[in-house]
Amino acid sequence: MGPGGGARPDELEKAEQLGKLIAAEGWTLLTGGRKAGVMHAASRGAAEAGGLVVGVLPTADRGGMSDFVHIPICTGMGSARNNINVLSSEVIVACGLGAGTTSEIMLALKSRKPLVLLNAPEPLVNFLNGLSYPMPDIAGSPADAITCVRNHL
Amino acid sequence: MGPGGGARPDELEKAEQLGKLIAAEGWTLLTGGRKAGVMHAASRGAAEAGGLVVGVLPTADRGGMSDFVHIPICTGMGSARNNINVLSSEVIVACGLGAGTTSEIMLALKSRKPLVLLNAPEPLVNFLNGLSYPMPDIAGSPADAITCVRNHL
Amino acid sequence: MGPGGGARPDELEKAEQLGKLIAAEGWTLLTGGRKAGVMHAASRGAAEAGGLVVGVLPTADRGGMSDFVHIPICTGMGSARNNINVLSSEVIVACGLGAGTTSEIMLALKSRKPLVLLNAPEPLVNFLNGLSYPMPDIAGSPADAITCVRNHL
Amino acid sequence: MGPGGGARPDELEKAEQLGKLIAAEGWTLLTGGRKAGVMHAASRGAAEAGGLVVGVLPTADRGGMSDFVHIPICTGMGSARNNINVLSSEVIVACGLGAGTTSEIMLALKSRKPLVLLNAPEPLVNFLNGLSYPMPDIAGSPADAITCVRNHL
Repeated sequence: MGPGGGARPDELEKAEQLGKLIAAEGWTLLTGGRKAGVMHAASRGAAEAGGLVVGVLPTADRGGMSDFVHIPICTGMGSARNNINVLSSEVIVACGLGAGTTSEIMLALKSRKPLVLLNAPEPLVNFLNGLSYPMPDIAGSPADAITCVRNHL
Repeated sequence: MGPGGGARPDELEKAEQLGKLIAAEGWTLLTGGRKAGVMHAASRGAAEAGGLVVGVLPTADRGGMSDFVHIPICTGMGSARNNINVLSSEVIVACGLGAGTTSEIMLALKSRKPLVLLNAPEPLVNFLNGLSYPMPDIAGSPADAITCVRNHL
Repeated sequence: MGPGGGARPDELEKAEQLGKLIAAEGWTLLTGGRKAGVMHAASRGAAEAGGLVVGVLPTADRGGMSDFVHIPICTGMGSARNNINVLSSEVIVACGLGAGTTSEIMLALKSRKPLVLLNAPEPLVNFLNGLSYPMPDIAGSPADAITCVRNHL
Repeated sequence: MGPGGGARPDELEKAEQLGKLIAAEGWTLLTGGRKAGVMHAASRGAAEAGGLVVGVLPTADRGGMSDFVHIPICTGMGSARNNINVLSSEVIVACGLGAGTTSEIMLALKSRKPLVLLNAPEPLVNFLNGLSYPMPDIAGSPADAITCVRNHL
């Protein structure tokens, strides 16, 4: 999970690298499916490395979909689809930060899903420390995130 | 699309055969994902023939999922997920009849999706004739349904 | 529940009359909220008679909302909101016929909600007779529908 | 909007007071509808002061609903209904903090809805300062929150 608009170059690079590593593990990547930001970069990384990519789109059709999505799920539900992303994932990795991504982090906590934060800014970590939920894993690199995910499977 | 509970033996047989033929075409099968009725039979047919099966579940987790689903989408939305099934499919084939399946037939008409009816009972056909929508294709066999689908791609 | 576009004049008249009678009973009217067809006519009837009108909209904002809705619920979910209409109602009255309305009839059957059909065409009744669900009440007039609803409360 | 479980006594007191003031303004209160925490306290405050209370429930029926909800909307969608809460509100007031409430804060930012934070902890404010969204209003008391809301209408 990660921001569409407003993603920083280093976040995009890490997301693409993460996608590659997910494919190398033989795992399926599930993203928000849009041709934007972290979703698109991770999908490209996974698809180009031979992985399978599921995109759970906010839209009712495939307009705006990343070219690297193999399995589009058209929800037509806007941001309410964020909950589907979380429920459908075995482990959630949040890479970078936006309002939508943070809503997914919160839904992951609420549904007690394993959660890994990559590129987590300090104010987010401080804020999460004050909530009454188990602290997510904090990963320093895509390879580190993969290790965290593996521990949850 | 097809009923979970209450599916008749001939519907299950046709659904499994349809799943096999979908896999043979290299298409991805999307069903409602439950381990019941037409969904389960079609998923078995497709999976055993080497096809890829997506299951869009009404539940928030994988409880009750067909063993033949490769890509589970956990919506946690109950029957509201029927609309996602329709929007995510390129062509809908309805096999057999129940309230849920009929709701999907109606949503497919409403979203102007190509629709094929397999095993369509006469009262349904009469009813559809009275609606102001283009008549769906009526298929007499799984092989016939595949031909109808191919014409829509 | 009833069609937006394509509603016939006699359906609109009955819907408005039904809205009036619902308000006279002191009940709250819940519709699909759009400024179209049966939804709009029933909302006008209820609001002008001093009743409270809830509109569960398919849209993410109030564009296209009936002027007679007091409580808008903006779902941003398109036709997936039909299930919310059904689940939120104590009794469903379907007036007139379209694909969306028929999907709501089917979801009402599936969730075992009391269901009254006003202006039900014969092909629909024949079709419902073939399903394995209890037959809905068939009402010949708005006043008759009110009697049916009262029996379910 | 506010937490169900885990709300602190001072948050409940403020929520009830806020509900009272909302009713006194003649506004309709919309909450998540559950008989728990901030939702229940605000609903009680509004209902006892003669206001109208809408509850957008995560559940498919009225089990677990606050006794002070007049208009229940049964979504059957779990936490995906948080987006409906946000889209249906003219102004969102978040009182207290949990994962669900924070997801609603994020969805409010994403949908550009006016947002007022009551009882906002400093780590949340610091975190929000780092996002690329307009800063919500920060209210020190229920009366202050009402003033903020009025400015957005």
